This record gives sequence, C-alpha cells and structure tokens, in this order.
Amino acid sequence: MADLGHAARTDPPVVYADVEAAAARLDGVSNRTPVLTSRFVDERVGGRVFFKCENFQRAGAFKFRGAYNALSRLSNEQRERGVLAYSSGNHAQAVALAGRLLRVSTTIVMPGDAPEVKLAATRGYGAEVVEYDRTETTREELGARISQERDLSLIPPYDHPDIIAGQGTTARELFEEVGQLDLLLVCCGGGGLLSGCAIAVRTLSPGCRIVGVEPERANDATRSFRTKKLHTIDNPDTIADGVRTPSLGRLTFPLVLRHVDEMVTVAEDAILHAMFLLWERMKVVVEPTGALAAAALFEGAIEASGARVGVIVSGGNVDLKRIGALLP
Amino acid sequence: MADLGHAARTDPPVVYADVEAAAARLDGVSNRTPVLTSRFVDERVGGRVFFKCENFQRAGAFKFRGAYNALSRLSNEQRERGVLAYSSGNHAQAVALAGRLLRVSTTIVMPGDAPEVKLAATRGYGAEVVEYDRTETTREELGARISQERDLSLIPPYDHPDIIAGQGTTARELFEEVGQLDLLLVCCGGGGLLSGCAIAVRTLSPGCRIVGVEPERANDATRSFRTKKLHTIDNPDTIADGVRTPSLGRLTFPLVLRHVDEMVTVAEDAILHAMFLLWERMKVVVEPTGALAAAALFEGAIEASGARVGVIVSGGNVDLKRIGALLP
Repeated sequence: MADLGHAARTDPPVVYADVEAAAARLDGVSNRTPVLTSRFVDERVGGRVFFKCENFQRAGAFKFRGAYNALSRLSNEQRERGVLAYSSGNHAQAVALAGRLLRVSTTIVMPGDAPEVKLAATRGYGAEVVEYDRTETTREELGARISQERDLSLIPPYDHPDIIAGQGTTARELFEEVGQLDLLLVCCGGGGLLSGCAIAVRTLSPGCRIVGVEPERANDATRSFRTKKLHTIDNPDTIADGVRTPSLGRLTFPLVLRHVDEMVTVAEDAILHAMFLLWERMKVVVEPTGALAAAALFEGAIEASGARVGVIVSGGNVDLKRIGALLP
Repeated sequence: MADLGHAARTDPPVVYADVEAAAARLDGVSNRTPVLTSRFVDERVGGRVFFKCENFQRAGAFKFRGAYNALSRLSNEQRERGVLAYSSGNHAQAVALAGRLLRVSTTIVMPGDAPEVKLAATRGYGAEVVEYDRTETTREELGARISQERDLSLIPPYDHPDIIAGQGTTARELFEEVGQLDLLLVCCGGGGLLSGCAIAVRTLSPGCRIVGVEPERANDATRSFRTKKLHTIDNPDTIADGVRTPSLGRLTFPLVLRHVDEMVTVAEDAILHAMFLLWERMKVVVEPTGALAAAALFEGAIEASGARVGVIVSGGNVDLKRIGALLP
C-alpha cells in the first residue's frame, strides 16, 4: 500500500493552518453550503440556531471536503497510479467525484449487497467499483490486497490529516457566515468531522463549546472520551449508517480528547424524530446521520437556552424507499 | 361581505408598480428564499436552471407573500374587524400567519375532514378555524354568511390585485438574484402566482418566455388560454392539491392571456417523479404542486437546451405519511 507521502509530523497532526490550506484548495470546487435558520426551531429551543447544511454539499455530504483535499495533496506520481477507498457510504461517492474532478482514477471496494443506488452513483462518478462478498472477505483485506497489487494510494475515511483538515472547513465556513457561537453540535462516527471542526472552533470561536453527538447504540466515542481509553463497537445497530464506524482513529481520538468539550448520545427514535422534523418543518432532506446533532438539541441533551448554536447537518443521502418505510 | 377597499381600477388591475410596492411591504417580513442550482439538473436539461425555492418561505409556500400584502393594505377599521379566508391548504396558513404578525384576527373556514396537521397548523398561528361538513354546505356559502354576519373582510386565495402583486414579488426576487432569464416556468392553479410573476417578467426580463404549468388532469387554464374562453373543472383529481382550483379568476384570466407566452401540462406520474427527484438529488422537500414547473422541464414539455431557466418551486407542505405511501 502506497503511503500518502506525509512525513511523520510532530503532535498535533492537524492544526488550524491545515484547515486554512484545505479551504484554499476547496475554494470554487466545494459548495459553500447554505446556513438555514428556523423560527420554529428557535422558539422551541429558546436560542438562535444555525444549521450548516452539508446535505447540499457536492455528492450530498461533507465527505467531499476531506476527499478532495486528500486527493489534491497527492504527488503527480501518486495521481497517475490512482487511489483506492473502501466504503459503502458517502466517502465512496466523495472519493469517486474528487477523482473525476482531479483526473485521478479511483477504485472503490463496496459490498456486493450495497444498495443499487449507491453502487450506481459511485460508478456514475467514474469509479471502478470492486464488489466483495461479506461472507468471504472483509473490505480491509480486499482493499489492502488490491491497493498493494496496483500500487494505489489508500484514501481512509477519517483517520488522516488531510481528511480531518478538509472536514474542518465546514465549521470554518459556518463561523465566516454567522460569527462566533456559544455552542457547536457535530455528529461523530470516526471523528474526522468532529475533530476537524473542533480545531476550527479553537481558533475562530474560542469561547464556543463543541459537543460531539453519537447514537446511544454506537456510543464508542462517548465512552472513549469519558474514560480516555479507546472503546470499540463492531457493527453497531443504528439507523445512522454514517456513524457505524467501530471506533475513533489513531489521530482523531487524541484530537477529540484535546479539543472537544463534551460527548452526548441520542436514542434511535430521537434521531428519526429529528430527521422527519427537519424534513417537515425546514423542508430539507437529511439522512439519519445528518439529523444526529439536531436530535441532541431537540431532545435537550444539551442546554441551549439563550445560546447561539451551530448544528452541522452532515448529509442528505437517503434511499427514499427505505426511509419512507420508517415514517411514524 | 366587506369590500377590501379598492376603488374600481382601470385595466390592467395590477401593474409592475404594485409588485414593487408589495416588495417594500414584505421587506424584512417574508423570507428572501434561496435560489438553488444543481449540476445534475443542468447536465440533464442541457441548460442553466435556477430553482426559486418558496418551500422555504414562511408558512412553507409563496402564499404568504400575497396574504401579507393584502392584509397590510386593509384600513385600520377593517383590521379591527378581522378577516376571513376559506382554504384547506397553504392560503389558510398564510392568512393566519399574516394576521398574527399584523395583529388582525383571522377566521378560516376549513372542511372538518381536512388533515389534522393542517387544522392544527392553522390554529397554531392563532386563527379561529370554523369547520364545516362538506355534505351539508360549501365553504363559499358558509364563508359568505360568516363574513357578512361578523363584517369580516374576505381574503380571496388568488383573484385580488393585492394577492397577485404579492405573489409577483417571487419572480422579482429571482431576477434580482440571477439577472435576466430566457425562460420562466410557474405552476398554475387560480393563476395568482403565474400572473403576478408574468407582470414582473415583462418589466424585469422582457425577453423571457413565461410558461404556466398545470397537471393534465386539471388543465382548465391551459384550455382557457388556448381558446380564450374560460374553462372550469370542478374538483380535478390530481395529486397536486394546490392547483385543484376550478378555473382562472376574473382578474387572473385576462392577465394570463395578456402576459403569459404558453401553457403546458404534465401527467401525474411526471409530477411525482419530479417531486422525488428534487427530494433525492437536490435534498429539498417540495409538495406535488411545488414540483409541477420542474416536471415540465424534466419531461421536455418545454425546450430548454442552452437556456437560462427559472423554475418556481411553489411550496413544501407535505403530509410525509401520505407522501411516503406514494414512493415508487
């Protein structure tokens, strides 16, 4: 497996200057996504809430920021050889799209039983999709083998400095648009978005509390945060498919410990309730993971009365048919 | 029934100066709704498409513009007596909200079997809802009786100069944001939005073709436009519940004849297809009526290749449960 070309860095692995540099690379390429507000939500919460809507990002989720930033940083030689990612979700489409834009060939390892719409979307961006049988191999094994055989650079979904810095541009844009905040709520799977945003908070709005949000059923990061020991949950059974990652990463765990103020969890029904509330009242299609941070706010898991609150809506890629079946 | 206080006007009943005046009244009150674009749609259509998203308007639809403008124009005496509207849809909520903001008491006549969510939303804005039994009376009869008894001003849903001028501010904002267009697509029920926007087009983008869009099953305005004789369809059976109006109005019909370039129709399945495409690809929740103009574009009912095209997305008030059942 080819190395992405980074020399070993001194701690910390990502600083705010990296987020700035990522923002410059993304300028004119990623969507500057809208910040929406809702009188209904403000009245309900008793604060002023700003939703940073990454469901309007290219390929439908914040993942494009990190993927494009990472691919931009490859050497010419690495670009010519191509990249590989394994993901059945938003990272797959993000890498495929970034590859198309940067003329880097992309190979995506996906389970053969992934939703047809996701396989088609990833191929639609020009990626070569390698399907595998979940009963015969793991994506890590297969991904490692293919990337070694073909000398491809692996683009990990979260645990890489360029990915983290790219995701941090989400919070940077939010502060640019609305100024300082009292509280920022960010969903947490592998911790790429959360740690990237936390780095931006510490420079751009130092007084802002940053809180990570997880499903109760996938509370590995919350437990890791509280105990300062890495916890792992394999295949957590949550509707929020974007945060079914087993644990924080080698880089993201210390960054979360260092910069994040608190971690909270929300129940499955609260996630669905928040998601449909965003659909019905704010008219935006968000995926379950995209509603995690809002769910913590609506459930009162965090006190927000009188506060200026940022909420990252991470993505909006849903299979309408599947989601429709979950309507209350 | 109290008159709204307009002296008889010479033809035409609404001119662009009325739209300007309405915009000044709405300034800081109505939402300046976002204009969204989609690379996916642009590639598919072969043009540049600008979606003016009135689903993000207050109370979820463009109707707030006309209702607030009309209530703003009442005399102090009329405001003290209050207003009445009959509607089971977006006009009801729009009048109720405008009344709350302007401290005018509102009475809304709605069928007792209207969706509970709509009754609750209208009451939530502070309106007195008078329910009636569809088998015993019509809303027109009941509305006329109550407004006469209580000396209330009737706020009609479309056939009034202040309503038309208010709806025209939608197109005005779109041109302010994106400049001149080659084509503007607007859904058509009673013709308030269409004629208001057409008036704005003639001043702000004179070379722009303006096209009204109806469901095939509710093609009264298309037939009226083509034959220059008013056609009526009672209770048309279309999923686009916002355009189940029987015909154009006394004011809107001549305005449509005068200013609109063409009328086209779309089939029911094309409306649903366009609606879910907007949900899935653009991540916006629109109601069936809100997808009418987009449906004409996606179906190729109007040639748009190489053109700069405006599409009015009229609203986003859906009963998710009911819509979920329609998923393909």
